[in-house]
Amino acid sequence: MAEPLRIALAGLGTVGVGVIRLVETNRDMIAARAGRPIEIVAVTARERGRDRGVDLSSYAWVDDMQAMAGRADVDVVVELVGGSDGPALTLARSALDAGKGLVTANKAMVAHHGLELAEIAAMRNAPFAFEAAVAGGIPVLKGLREGTAANALDRIYGILNGTCNYVLSEMEQTGADFEEMLRAAQEKGYAEADPAFDIEGVDAAHKLAILAAIGFGTRIDFDAVRTEGITQVRASDIAQADALGYVIRLVGIASLAGEGEERRLLQRVRPCLVPFRHPLAAVTGPTNAVVAEGDFSGRLLFQGAGAGDKPTASAVVADLIDIARGQSGAPFSVPTTSLVPCEPADPGDRIGRDYIRFTVADRPGVLAEITAAMRDAGVSIESLIQRGRNAEGGDVQVAMVTHEGPERCVTKALELLDGSPSLTAPPLVMPILKD
Amino acid sequence: MAEPLRIALAGLGTVGVGVIRLVETNRDMIAARAGRPIEIVAVTARERGRDRGVDLSSYAWVDDMQAMAGRADVDVVVELVGGSDGPALTLARSALDAGKGLVTANKAMVAHHGLELAEIAAMRNAPFAFEAAVAGGIPVLKGLREGTAANALDRIYGILNGTCNYVLSEMEQTGADFEEMLRAAQEKGYAEADPAFDIEGVDAAHKLAILAAIGFGTRIDFDAVRTEGITQVRASDIAQADALGYVIRLVGIASLAGEGEERRLLQRVRPCLVPFRHPLAAVTGPTNAVVAEGDFSGRLLFQGAGAGDKPTASAVVADLIDIARGQSGAPFSVPTTSLVPCEPADPGDRIGRDYIRFTVADRPGVLAEITAAMRDAGVSIESLIQRGRNAEGGDVQVAMVTHEGPERCVTKALELLDGSPSLTAPPLVMPILKD
Repeated sequence: MAEPLRIALAGLGTVGVGVIRLVETNRDMIAARAGRPIEIVAVTARERGRDRGVDLSSYAWVDDMQAMAGRADVDVVVELVGGSDGPALTLARSALDAGKGLVTANKAMVAHHGLELAEIAAMRNAPFAFEAAVAGGIPVLKGLREGTAANALDRIYGILNGTCNYVLSEMEQTGADFEEMLRAAQEKGYAEADPAFDIEGVDAAHKLAILAAIGFGTRIDFDAVRTEGITQVRASDIAQADALGYVIRLVGIASLAGEGEERRLLQRVRPCLVPFRHPLAAVTGPTNAVVAEGDFSGRLLFQGAGAGDKPTASAVVADLIDIARGQSGAPFSVPTTSLVPCEPADPGDRIGRDYIRFTVADRPGVLAEITAAMRDAGVSIESLIQRGRNAEGGDVQVAMVTHEGPERCVTKALELLDGSPSLTAPPLVMPILKD
Repeated sequence: MAEPLRIALAGLGTVGVGVIRLVETNRDMIAARAGRPIEIVAVTARERGRDRGVDLSSYAWVDDMQAMAGRADVDVVVELVGGSDGPALTLARSALDAGKGLVTANKAMVAHHGLELAEIAAMRNAPFAFEAAVAGGIPVLKGLREGTAANALDRIYGILNGTCNYVLSEMEQTGADFEEMLRAAQEKGYAEADPAFDIEGVDAAHKLAILAAIGFGTRIDFDAVRTEGITQVRASDIAQADALGYVIRLVGIASLAGEGEERRLLQRVRPCLVPFRHPLAAVTGPTNAVVAEGDFSGRLLFQGAGAGDKPTASAVVADLIDIARGQSGAPFSVPTTSLVPCEPADPGDRIGRDYIRFTVADRPGVLAEITAAMRDAGVSIESLIQRGRNAEGGDVQVAMVTHEGPERCVTKALELLDGSPSLTAPPLVMPILKD
């Protein structure tokens, strides 16, 4: 058998320990499939002493994380430290600079610095892979980079954050409100003590930016992702959506419009209404799912565990097996020099249907005021439901579904209503996902 | 840019024409992603004159299909002729023997002769790929070969035949019986004039044998697939399943049990009861879906169009792009010499729950006879429903769901009842898919 692929592992949190367990558990099978053994030779983490439940004695312990990149006995550095900048980025840069391969699960770093790292990798002819950065154990980057490589994609979208999906699908099951289900998610370990990163959609936005770059061949542009989280979604919205035939999911959507110089990329993370029969509606709990729509493949769905030590380790080691096989291609599917910059699309151009929920004072004339604003902005109303007083007092909830039309009309209508004393809370707009 | 990858295309049916359209439509994008152009240089088919709606004038026409393998201007032969043996197999062998790459969508040929072809390919160091042979445009072979490469898989299963899934899901929607929905499928082009191959499960069995070999690293063993089609499924079964919380799907399941020498492989294609909340329950129409359960990845689902000219072409060209990139690995994930032969499992060993439907004479004592046989065979009954007389006359349908137990007990019970005048038609047993 050929020489082993020698790994240095930086970061021994749950995923790092998962990688060690996986490499040990399936050692022979991995060697058979990779054509050579995959061997961890060195590890590093902030604290040496901690008991992590795995035996580290056969690996060299490295105190200075940055020294990993310089070791002569290492072929690939696996970065599981986390954080978009700081030590993770320094290590990533120096590993690639030294001609080592780099495998990472760090979505924030790839979303912010993936292009720069891919350029160093290309220059040094070093493999660079990050399957684990998007949708945990689901081989979706491979699916886009290679599986749909023959296709022009129209849209890439999906459920990219397990915490949000757990909270939303539990709200759906129990009828409970957001805060309560977030606490439940924290107790079950599906949400961090500080959940902002997840529930505000930033984590999903990192993943979406990576998916869009790979799927569309555009230069990664995280800053252009328009992000809304799920904190404004109420139990009553979920009940209302259900009555209309929808579930609510936090969906990241990237779509291309226009041709050539006029090509525009829309990247958005938002709570959406998903029709019952759409495959994303069946995605519950902390599961992730990504849909890619190709001009020849049609709609493809990739679904599985979006996080967790074992699924993430599965993706990290899949990257290592590709590298061991000598089959790691351009990390963004084409050379970074071929990635085209793409201006962000004006979201006002989007043609679609929207769900709009108003919280209004319970007094005559309010509906007339809202519908007049809609008329003046050119929004056509498909249905409108006014629900009785809710627990909080004299407020009433008005839920509206629009006919298909440009999003800028809805925005205009809300501008017309802005500041009106009839509205007792900011309205919430959620797009209806096209089937 | 590097030298083009030069293709000879054998077979100009819908898929062949789809491949030509795809290579022409996405020419520049494919070249960018493959790192070199992909060029069709020669084509062949049975009839030269037929109008296929594409311009063939820029390709050399080859009258003798077998001559494709010998052409010096060809790097890869794409075999889209079909048939497990005959001209397709002769061409496949001679192309690989000549050191050409081989890409095929021919599931029957791969199921029967895939190992032999992989051995020739290995000997000649020629790429051999067949993503399009399983589940059309879904990159599921890549998913298993590479995406889940780090995992030991427990089970691989899925909806592998679009015709059957269309018929079953239409029966579900309309309440109509099998024969009527089969005719509807034929009218819509989802079923062949001679549908036996699809509805009797043979097509799904071909695909399952390929998935099992790749997923488990076993020598492909199509003859060991136990296959039942959907012809016995009645509208009343679907209604009964619905009342119990299930849909009926034709599912191919491959699972491994035991260790080392005692390892046994169960491969089966059968109509199954699928719980409403299982992702396969949401798969309707001619869609395919494959689930792989890995020890680290957890449950992964790959879903999309299982057939059709465009999705199948998407998979064929994805294989070509891999070859152009120099990234085609062992077709069965490991070298054929490393594939282990695996004895078929005894299906009686399966532990699970079953749905059993009896058609019985409407007279006293029949239920007692059936339940006595169950008791004597050691089958524990979870529920039993006797439905009123049906349209055909004095027969009554008895539907039963068993508690979890060994399948051999159910088989034994049916043997005890075999020949009983109380049973007016053979019973139908369908397993309940584990959630």
